[in-house]
Amino acid sequence: MYNFNRVSPLYTDLYQLTMGQAYFHNRIHTREASFDYFFRKIPFRGGYVVFAGLHELLELIHELRFSDRDLDYLAENGFSEEFLEYLKDFSFRGSIHSVREGDIVFPFEPVVRVEGELLETQLIETLLLNVLNFQSLVATKASRIRYAAGKRALSDFGLRRAQSFGAMQASRAAVIGGFNSTSNVLAAQKYQIPHAGTMAHSFIESFGDEVAAFRAYADAFPDNSVFLVDTYNTLFSGIPNAIIVAKEMKEKGHQLKGIRLDSGDLAYLSRKAREMLDYEGMEDVKIIVSNQLDEYVVKSLIEQKAPIDIFGVGTSLVTGQPDAALDGVYKLATVDNEPVLKISDNLQKTTLPGKKRVLRYFDREGFFYADAVVLTDEHDITQMVNPFEKHKSLNLEGFRYEEIFHTVMEQGKITISPENPIQIHERLKTRLNLLPAEHQRFDYPHIYKIGISEKVLKVRDNLLLKHQRRAF
Amino acid sequence: MYNFNRVSPLYTDLYQLTMGQAYFHNRIHTREASFDYFFRKIPFRGGYVVFAGLHELLELIHELRFSDRDLDYLAENGFSEEFLEYLKDFSFRGSIHSVREGDIVFPFEPVVRVEGELLETQLIETLLLNVLNFQSLVATKASRIRYAAGKRALSDFGLRRAQSFGAMQASRAAVIGGFNSTSNVLAAQKYQIPHAGTMAHSFIESFGDEVAAFRAYADAFPDNSVFLVDTYNTLFSGIPNAIIVAKEMKEKGHQLKGIRLDSGDLAYLSRKAREMLDYEGMEDVKIIVSNQLDEYVVKSLIEQKAPIDIFGVGTSLVTGQPDAALDGVYKLATVDNEPVLKISDNLQKTTLPGKKRVLRYFDREGFFYADAVVLTDEHDITQMVNPFEKHKSLNLEGFRYEEIFHTVMEQGKITISPENPIQIHERLKTRLNLLPAEHQRFDYPHIYKIGISEKVLKVRDNLLLKHQRRAF
Repeated sequence: MYNFNRVSPLYTDLYQLTMGQAYFHNRIHTREASFDYFFRKIPFRGGYVVFAGLHELLELIHELRFSDRDLDYLAENGFSEEFLEYLKDFSFRGSIHSVREGDIVFPFEPVVRVEGELLETQLIETLLLNVLNFQSLVATKASRIRYAAGKRALSDFGLRRAQSFGAMQASRAAVIGGFNSTSNVLAAQKYQIPHAGTMAHSFIESFGDEVAAFRAYADAFPDNSVFLVDTYNTLFSGIPNAIIVAKEMKEKGHQLKGIRLDSGDLAYLSRKAREMLDYEGMEDVKIIVSNQLDEYVVKSLIEQKAPIDIFGVGTSLVTGQPDAALDGVYKLATVDNEPVLKISDNLQKTTLPGKKRVLRYFDREGFFYADAVVLTDEHDITQMVNPFEKHKSLNLEGFRYEEIFHTVMEQGKITISPENPIQIHERLKTRLNLLPAEHQRFDYPHIYKIGISEKVLKVRDNLLLKHQRRAF
Repeated sequence: MYNFNRVSPLYTDLYQLTMGQAYFHNRIHTREASFDYFFRKIPFRGGYVVFAGLHELLELIHELRFSDRDLDYLAENGFSEEFLEYLKDFSFRGSIHSVREGDIVFPFEPVVRVEGELLETQLIETLLLNVLNFQSLVATKASRIRYAAGKRALSDFGLRRAQSFGAMQASRAAVIGGFNSTSNVLAAQKYQIPHAGTMAHSFIESFGDEVAAFRAYADAFPDNSVFLVDTYNTLFSGIPNAIIVAKEMKEKGHQLKGIRLDSGDLAYLSRKAREMLDYEGMEDVKIIVSNQLDEYVVKSLIEQKAPIDIFGVGTSLVTGQPDAALDGVYKLATVDNEPVLKISDNLQKTTLPGKKRVLRYFDREGFFYADAVVLTDEHDITQMVNPFEKHKSLNLEGFRYEEIFHTVMEQGKITISPENPIQIHERLKTRLNLLPAEHQRFDYPHIYKIGISEKVLKVRDNLLLKHQRRAF
């Protein structure tokens, strides 16, 4: 599992494979199909979602092959010989159209459209959801923490509390959302992101004496030392001892980089620490804090004017607490180029049929104004309709718009260049600059307008009528 | 990443490596050290935690080696040549003593004790926490759902909403906690657990017609078909169509296995579905439900006597919602066989020094009564003390007890046999049978008694006195 760049196609829900066999035996596996990826609920009661995970997903799909071991397992478990023969040569040869990674997206609009043969497009469902749901969740959380932190540095410290190997993707998504570094060395290596780290309480305890421990660390990393100051007593022991060793370092021409506070009242302690350091002329020594941080704690510390330079955020970031999941789904939209839908008593859970993409409209000041879900063969539209209350419409005549869908895979080949998470974050920054502030607010944000074209509405209503002759 | 059986030692927090180098350059890296793994807070407001992840952790530790690529990366990032030379031959040669996987554990007591050289025991911290915290979280969640479900079958459907590759460990832990199967085929293969699956709405939509879709599936899996009945309308379309095809199957000597409900009021719909199926003499056709289930929904459905045979549980299980993390920590307990501690203003966050293990005492009826944290060289004790309120003690004289710590790794070699998750669940069942019901209650459970021996108390208090000369 060294590189997390490949995964067995068995990393899927069983039903993708059983449905695949049923498609195959009924000779409909090569029918044209298109699926939409979208979500219904923004996590964290926020106003937007940061789309992340796309390039990793494309790489995993591109490498998807059944090994002999995979096929043996399926054979032992009752899959048919002909179907396994077919899977032996399987690779994904469909096309994928998608919003770019690092763009912001909203509920109910398609974010990714997958086109290809029915079997291949069905087979990648679980993998797609597994990758995109989680990375988008964490990137969204990270961007909220970035919003709270302003220009202060943010470091991902979450590996120890992450959901096992999900930690790798969490670290990537954290940087997309706005984190500057990670403590996870393997993620730093794989994704070319800066790593960061300080020391643990055990380091101090191993020496039994703070001064000795700080000295030993400074010897090993004379230009890159951060001392943890709360092992015994922050104000009476940790900081004074850090200052002693920082002075010794200065005499040797080195500079202590920072101190870390990991307990207690971080507003109070950071202020005291800053005073003590400044009193010694150590204005350059940074203050790093950690301990159960999230966007609300960061916001509160900054409102209290706590002189903190770097926030280390762990659990809440990498697990996307308190939601822990984005509810993204992958729904069939066309078969043989004919629109299909899934009906629910709840109109919000009825799917939007047809091949669709999204146009993003701008207001007069150049900010994002509304997103319109349109059919792929539609261009500029004059108005959009609320998908759930069709008497509500929004005039779009004369508004500038842009296409937010791009072709990212064509006949199984990735058609976009890889970007590292820092580059993707640059895109996010430019996008968030275009999102009016009221949608970025932490609590009860203004709801962004999403609509569908009248053509999409008509396709859905016709199909609803057809299927709902006996609807209750 | 095919098998998730190995991981690079770079899968760690940077500070483990920087501290390692500082230990190494100060020539204290070979000092004896012991660390305790424990947690402070039971997730889900429950009364116990199911310990899980141990064997996976042991395998990962056993295989831990620095590759050339790992070492090159560290060299580029400023690590010293001598230290990297040392890491080249690194393997973990320490010993691990632990509660068995599938046992139940409580806050503040050590669950795992790691002994060895300072550097190696430090280096595995992050990996240990990453693996044990998550699997214990999910196994605990699963056992709560199992408690609610009684003897009904439970299937893990969480892969699509899992935190990326954490899905693998989630499926393993789900079975340890009491699930019968998983939809995750790769996890089923790797851990030898039963897989389960039905069909998606897209399958029905691909045929455009429920009867045609059910027939096609039944043709492909004549003895293993579960029909999804809520694509258009459960009661007026899905179930009647399922019955039509089930009758056709019967004529050919086959039997429909079940139907699945994935939306709507599951209590109402399952009752109606049961009536309709029974009316046709299809008492053997099972009813499977899914859709945002957790232990509370399962409990409510069973209280309403919903005739459900199988519950498919996804998001809340595999992400451990709403907590999403167990707060386990790994704290240094001895260096050179001398006890050490980390002090906090909050006594609950001050560590317990010394090499320790846990004795589990039984009451007169043979149920678990209390756990006592004792030093490794202590045996039977006469009383234990509340670790945070030392005037509270509990008499243990004459009570039967058992050792719950076992040696699981000795000098780097695994000394226990692998068990599959189903075997581990068998252990959990026997343990839960010994845990009084009031600790298993969902909400506001009775708090299990955890104490420390007077010797442990004395060691901690002496160290506190030594360090707290200026404690406020």
